[in-house]
Amino acid sequence: MTGDRPGWDPAPDTGLLSPVRAGTAAEAATGDLAVLQAVLDAEAALARAQARLGAVPAAAAEAVTAAARAELYDLREVAVRARAAANPVVALVRMLAEEVARKDPQAASYVHQGSTSQDVLDTALMLVAARTADLVLADLDRTATALAALALRHRGTPMAARTLGQHAVPTTFGLKAAGWLQAVLDAGERLRRVREEGLPVQLGGAAGTLAGYLEYARLNAPAGTAGTAEGTAAYAQGLPSAVAAELGLAEPLVPWHTVRTPLADLAAALSLTATGLGTFAADVQLLSRTETAEVTEPAAAGRGASSAMPHKRNPALAALIRSAAYQLPGLVSTLAHAAVADDERPAGAWHAEWEPLRTALRLTGGAAATAAELAEGLTVHPDRMRANLELTGGLVVSERLAAVLSPDLGRAAARDLVAAASARAAAGGRHLADELAASPALAGLHGPRSLHELCDPAQYTGAAAVLVDRVLHRFRVTRRCG
Amino acid sequence: MTGDRPGWDPAPDTGLLSPVRAGTAAEAATGDLAVLQAVLDAEAALARAQARLGAVPAAAAEAVTAAARAELYDLREVAVRARAAANPVVALVRMLAEEVARKDPQAASYVHQGSTSQDVLDTALMLVAARTADLVLADLDRTATALAALALRHRGTPMAARTLGQHAVPTTFGLKAAGWLQAVLDAGERLRRVREEGLPVQLGGAAGTLAGYLEYARLNAPAGTAGTAEGTAAYAQGLPSAVAAELGLAEPLVPWHTVRTPLADLAAALSLTATGLGTFAADVQLLSRTETAEVTEPAAAGRGASSAMPHKRNPALAALIRSAAYQLPGLVSTLAHAAVADDERPAGAWHAEWEPLRTALRLTGGAAATAAELAEGLTVHPDRMRANLELTGGLVVSERLAAVLSPDLGRAAARDLVAAASARAAAGGRHLADELAASPALAGLHGPRSLHELCDPAQYTGAAAVLVDRVLHRFRVTRRCG
Amino acid sequence: MTGDRPGWDPAPDTGLLSPVRAGTAAEAATGDLAVLQAVLDAEAALARAQARLGAVPAAAAEAVTAAARAELYDLREVAVRARAAANPVVALVRMLAEEVARKDPQAASYVHQGSTSQDVLDTALMLVAARTADLVLADLDRTATALAALALRHRGTPMAARTLGQHAVPTTFGLKAAGWLQAVLDAGERLRRVREEGLPVQLGGAAGTLAGYLEYARLNAPAGTAGTAEGTAAYAQGLPSAVAAELGLAEPLVPWHTVRTPLADLAAALSLTATGLGTFAADVQLLSRTETAEVTEPAAAGRGASSAMPHKRNPALAALIRSAAYQLPGLVSTLAHAAVADDERPAGAWHAEWEPLRTALRLTGGAAATAAELAEGLTVHPDRMRANLELTGGLVVSERLAAVLSPDLGRAAARDLVAAASARAAAGGRHLADELAASPALAGLHGPRSLHELCDPAQYTGAAAVLVDRVLHRFRVTRRCG
Amino acid sequence: MTGDRPGWDPAPDTGLLSPVRAGTAAEAATGDLAVLQAVLDAEAALARAQARLGAVPAAAAEAVTAAARAELYDLREVAVRARAAANPVVALVRMLAEEVARKDPQAASYVHQGSTSQDVLDTALMLVAARTADLVLADLDRTATALAALALRHRGTPMAARTLGQHAVPTTFGLKAAGWLQAVLDAGERLRRVREEGLPVQLGGAAGTLAGYLEYARLNAPAGTAGTAEGTAAYAQGLPSAVAAELGLAEPLVPWHTVRTPLADLAAALSLTATGLGTFAADVQLLSRTETAEVTEPAAAGRGASSAMPHKRNPALAALIRSAAYQLPGLVSTLAHAAVADDERPAGAWHAEWEPLRTALRLTGGAAATAAELAEGLTVHPDRMRANLELTGGLVVSERLAAVLSPDLGRAAARDLVAAASARAAAGGRHLADELAASPALAGLHGPRSLHELCDPAQYTGAAAVLVDRVLHRFRVTRRCG
Repeated sequence: MTGDRPGWDPAPDTGLLSPVRAGTAAEAATGDLAVLQAVLDAEAALARAQARLGAVPAAAAEAVTAAARAELYDLREVAVRARAAANPVVALVRMLAEEVARKDPQAASYVHQGSTSQDVLDTALMLVAARTADLVLADLDRTATALAALALRHRGTPMAARTLGQHAVPTTFGLKAAGWLQAVLDAGERLRRVREEGLPVQLGGAAGTLAGYLEYARLNAPAGTAGTAEGTAAYAQGLPSAVAAELGLAEPLVPWHTVRTPLADLAAALSLTATGLGTFAADVQLLSRTETAEVTEPAAAGRGASSAMPHKRNPALAALIRSAAYQLPGLVSTLAHAAVADDERPAGAWHAEWEPLRTALRLTGGAAATAAELAEGLTVHPDRMRANLELTGGLVVSERLAAVLSPDLGRAAARDLVAAASARAAAGGRHLADELAASPALAGLHGPRSLHELCDPAQYTGAAAVLVDRVLHRFRVTRRCG
Repeated sequence: MTGDRPGWDPAPDTGLLSPVRAGTAAEAATGDLAVLQAVLDAEAALARAQARLGAVPAAAAEAVTAAARAELYDLREVAVRARAAANPVVALVRMLAEEVARKDPQAASYVHQGSTSQDVLDTALMLVAARTADLVLADLDRTATALAALALRHRGTPMAARTLGQHAVPTTFGLKAAGWLQAVLDAGERLRRVREEGLPVQLGGAAGTLAGYLEYARLNAPAGTAGTAEGTAAYAQGLPSAVAAELGLAEPLVPWHTVRTPLADLAAALSLTATGLGTFAADVQLLSRTETAEVTEPAAAGRGASSAMPHKRNPALAALIRSAAYQLPGLVSTLAHAAVADDERPAGAWHAEWEPLRTALRLTGGAAATAAELAEGLTVHPDRMRANLELTGGLVVSERLAAVLSPDLGRAAARDLVAAASARAAAGGRHLADELAASPALAGLHGPRSLHELCDPAQYTGAAAVLVDRVLHRFRVTRRCG
Repeated sequence: MTGDRPGWDPAPDTGLLSPVRAGTAAEAATGDLAVLQAVLDAEAALARAQARLGAVPAAAAEAVTAAARAELYDLREVAVRARAAANPVVALVRMLAEEVARKDPQAASYVHQGSTSQDVLDTALMLVAARTADLVLADLDRTATALAALALRHRGTPMAARTLGQHAVPTTFGLKAAGWLQAVLDAGERLRRVREEGLPVQLGGAAGTLAGYLEYARLNAPAGTAGTAEGTAAYAQGLPSAVAAELGLAEPLVPWHTVRTPLADLAAALSLTATGLGTFAADVQLLSRTETAEVTEPAAAGRGASSAMPHKRNPALAALIRSAAYQLPGLVSTLAHAAVADDERPAGAWHAEWEPLRTALRLTGGAAATAAELAEGLTVHPDRMRANLELTGGLVVSERLAAVLSPDLGRAAARDLVAAASARAAAGGRHLADELAASPALAGLHGPRSLHELCDPAQYTGAAAVLVDRVLHRFRVTRRCG
Repeated sequence: MTGDRPGWDPAPDTGLLSPVRAGTAAEAATGDLAVLQAVLDAEAALARAQARLGAVPAAAAEAVTAAARAELYDLREVAVRARAAANPVVALVRMLAEEVARKDPQAASYVHQGSTSQDVLDTALMLVAARTADLVLADLDRTATALAALALRHRGTPMAARTLGQHAVPTTFGLKAAGWLQAVLDAGERLRRVREEGLPVQLGGAAGTLAGYLEYARLNAPAGTAGTAEGTAAYAQGLPSAVAAELGLAEPLVPWHTVRTPLADLAAALSLTATGLGTFAADVQLLSRTETAEVTEPAAAGRGASSAMPHKRNPALAALIRSAAYQLPGLVSTLAHAAVADDERPAGAWHAEWEPLRTALRLTGGAAATAAELAEGLTVHPDRMRANLELTGGLVVSERLAAVLSPDLGRAAARDLVAAASARAAAGGRHLADELAASPALAGLHGPRSLHELCDPAQYTGAAAVLVDRVLHRFRVTRRCG
């Protein structure tokens, strides 16, 4: 079906510049071949749905379905011929009709009957989104399971909480993992909602009135839709419904050629997923810095290798995830601009959606697969967490000291006393408890031992365990119902 | 409370460069004064909630509440002093404590007890979002009502559907208005969901463990939360719950200092709203172009005036709405980048959210108010629509002709015949029906009269009326339940 | 060199969803194969440059050069193996060394000597940028030449200027084309500057100190750089200089691992190019709307075909160009975020640059090629422009009338008189000149004939011709010097 | 001039949510009052320029100039009235004319003669940009001076270079500071170029033909421009030239109503500035993390205070700077979308530029002022840098060891040996030199002492000092010429 023609691509793209998705299932599910197959699936489903409703002969629908296999077509030829109509459907429909005609000349005229490029391409992209979303959801589940295990195991592992990069107060690694889990559950919930209800087929005909579909139905099945209002209403409902059933997609209330809510919802869920995973990755990077060293990425042969430094084990998975998180916002922004879809089909805005949508799906899918790998293999170093907690000599619990001393000294005086003692401790390298013990204002109130006990970071993790439990509860409920 | 100090702002901003929101209710609801009041509301609600739970004396909570009036503070002073801590809360807490102390020195130490800047500022911004969302929802309702009326009135008004800027097939103005309505209903549904369930108070203390809140509760109300696991769990649940009840916001599962889902959901709903309204505006602009003239914006004294051309009536409302739609995607993109919130509080990402969030709320609010005005006053010119439909001499129904002739001629031959006749008609300025009537292939099949009837655009609007009804049905259901 | 391994990609991407670049030269110049070749070119140039400076045996450099042919490697294998190190260079260096070893085992150890992945990949991307920029510049030249011809030919062709979609005053099509030309010249000027001075090689070694390069130089060529300050300085200058000379790229002042100015400059030039061409395309779309019909896109077999409507000739080229213009801002925004490059190499930000940069180059290249085609084939309809100018019955020159009448009536009175007459003319369908002629205030001042003369749009095009000449002059100067 | 009217703003914005710019000079230079003054400056300059060319009486130009003081007008009234025309100029022109008429009724009719809103507002925004750019450039100079001093002082201060968060090889703090300086110099160079050549006045009249200006010139100064081609050309050159001279802005080749290159150039320079400063800030944050502690922000009363934790000294300045760096890319992206400016004035795109442009100027200005403060006060801890360098027990120089051992062992064997020894050292907590010394392969080649010497990080900083010198040289040259 192909030929030797100018512009032929001898070496197409394979993910060389996007390792976060190279080789992942999401990459395959969003590749040009997968898109081409989805376009053909949409054409075949349309023919079968019309056949169900009497507007296309059953044999013709079967012939279209038989020809709707991507491997029969030359991807590159479709891509290059797409320039003439500014979309790949026009050329593909011709090629599909030729392929059908080869087997069943009568059937060929039923290809794409009453349809328009946008019906087919929008539906195909929803199909690609659905298939990819299933993969992403599975990887989010894997990630969530691994994070839940971390949260449970380290429910009581104290570590320093850091705000603006500085030790603040103690927290637990369990709560940190629970925070990552919470983000993953939020993302999964939204993406699942979109997957289940928010990916509709597109079916409106040339300009959203279904006129072409109705006209052919009238001509081919005069009994059913002979121009009556009821017949029209029934067919206008029945056709999208049948196509949706064929493809496992949602049924739209009306055509959405220029109401791009499905893409916006999908984009929002993808962006939330990628940035949520990005936070996990960013934390892993900070915690694995050489000076901090509280976690390390899973080891694997060659993983994290540097081309220059033989000793290095780079947090490569986290870098991959973040590379996706960096790219999603710009893609979502492009889709939002393109959502201002004027006339009955905009001239450029629609065409600008395809590649960013695919890239957003693919990067998010790659990030989710990578995050599952990272979460499942993350090594945690509680001893190092404990050692880092001691770095400030008690300053990490100064908040607590200021509180505890306030009944005796008054709030302001307690705060000032602790601040002054903290400053002396930091300057002199002594422990805050010792500085306070030497303070005349506390004479007879708190001895060194009591002060050192109050300074134990492990005793000042607040409701961390309770909060971990709440997120774990949500995880278990989601598990059962999700 | 203020004074004469360097850096004093003699002339703050009033919306000069953002007319889409100048003077609207959403502008006031998102202004610095409204934000300051929301911060104070959050502090007062926190004190009252702690009082309810026994951790703060009732009188102190009352004193804090009494002092929590924005007009008591110098906005500019707070703003300028915010630089020292990189957020406005630290300075304001001091000023609030001083104000409380003026009336009740004992009470002052209970201000901001156990809290952290992010708890207060995040909660305040959720409050601002809730208040603004109510305004936006009301304006979306107004817009929807006006668009529903247009859709109903013009359910059968034929006009040219345009794709890629060219006449495609007929549609109705009712369906066009129904499309705008559908976008408004989608946006309203999402924004309402966020308003009702998605705007939680923030309550985590210094690093999300609630340790400070618990410590003060232990010190002040030893009976209730005396360090037992149950007491901790109850308080960790009770405090955010009480604050949420005080403020009419949602209750979070856990603190969300670094899990920015609420902002992402809100941003997505705002973006969908602004771009949906932007499509309405873009269509109004295209339809009101001098050559097309199918709609005109509502007239008002001075509205649409040009500084250069006395005759012009510019579609000024539509331009305002689009100015908002252009800005939302960039703001949402910034918020998505900032959602990668590392550590227990990021150093810059959190700080980057405030202004874009406020601007997104404000622009969307301005756009919604402007859209209501536009929808309520839009003038429609059915005669001009009809005249434009005739411009192509029947070409606008060529799709139908190709379908109708196909039983006689075969699909491909019919399509070719119509395409050739269309080309001749376009070149020669004759009507498509006449070109076809002269075609030997149709001799004896379709006479000129039948062909002209087939060419009537008003008879080829497909399921337009049915689709209008579906959207109107949704509108009515939303009305009852919304 | 490849094999059968899991994750193998059976059908890579070929531009199916991006017709604006499918089949263009810029697509090939930015494809994975071109990138792979550029990486190999960078490695070979590095070896030759080190050889020139005595740090690598000449034979080894030759062996590396001989092995630096992309067709020797399996693209997909490199892509998938890139996940381990989060970049494709580590794996490729191993494969390259193996390939070199096959011919010259001694030489293999000189592959990538002293280097780091970022040196090679950044340099490779600059090389890809340079090669693509040359293509873009050539297409901008073609576009400019065609637009200059249009501007010259239609220097005096009157048409309606439109502001906010409404007829404003007359202009000429020549000035419109000159505006497009001005944008193209601006873009070309900036892109040429970047091409000539702004695309430097990257050369810093593991962390930007060149320590590895120097160490190997010291070991291999003790004479030259034996640890002396002069030797170090000379080599630190000589090596990047030699690599730059090998590759035809600029020489950097210092390594720019974390100072991403070259990417920012390039991104800015690409964005300006795409949005400038986008304006041209947007104007073509507006002018070719069915009701306006002042220009039409070049015809070609199949061009602009619709899958639904046999008569349509869609402005497909303009839609393609705009699809690129929609995508550039989001890509540039991603690159700007990634420019905050911390440490000596950021963990994610760098990795996020590659794909957006390539996409930005490729889309701009596709847009430029498409714009050249559009500009060269654009059909202009002066008669239709003239007819449209008459649509408002003289209102399009109301600005002039207000001016001309002001000496007699006073400025304000003249403006009011014209505004009132305009309103009556618009309402009653009469010509503005006739309305004014009937005005008592003008009795004895201006007769109908004089008023009709004043209303001739062709006589009110201001300095349009002068402005066209200025842009054409710039075009000619650029031509000679560019 | 104001009154009590609905929509009056009782509490405008003062920077509460944007502390990075609150109280800075850039904030004042970009405030609504400054914008209003710039609009009035543009009107006055236009009148004076027309007077110079004989098209306006000198006395009228003086009267307009006298009335062009922002304090005479009610900012809020202008802002709210701007909604009617979708821009603030139409209302302001009326108010200005009234103010002029109060003193000189004859003069009033010369206000805004021949002009259009976009001429005035674009020119005003260029003026605001020029004034703010001067401030930014001054703060970049301060920042550069401080960074140059740091680079010079720490030219030889060794520290760990970090890539992907892990210690890589040694570098010097001087080179790090030189990298920040290089970014600042790049930004300053581009911003200065835009300031000096890239901020043109806008002057085109209603639709870019200058027709209105010419018509009034013809009427008022018949001698000069009596409709001749030469007169027209001279005036079309002379008027923008005169306005540019009045305002100290550049002279445009032609009107740029729809060719938005000046905004794009400016936006690119601002983005580069903010992200360059953002990298400096991000590095300061990483280096000041509790575990790393190699630098600390300048101390100041209240600076970096936490509302919860008395001991904390947050890197507040860096957080402020990064808050700006996070926001610029989204703003620039909005401006790039708006640059697709169709017709002779787009309906929404133009209107969407104003607020993002102002915000971009203001945030960059605030970031530059903050960066100067940060750079001037940064405290550096060389001892801590040295201590951190030792953390990995020699691994930070493993690259060197692999190189040095390769002549004896062969490249691959040396690399493997060092990698294995590194792994053992990391696992066992021993020094790399000791592990290597124990290696049989090195017996007789390198003793422990020699190996420890090779492991001295201070002896492996490559060309760091040379590179510092190059950037300092550039700094000094810029100083002299800038």
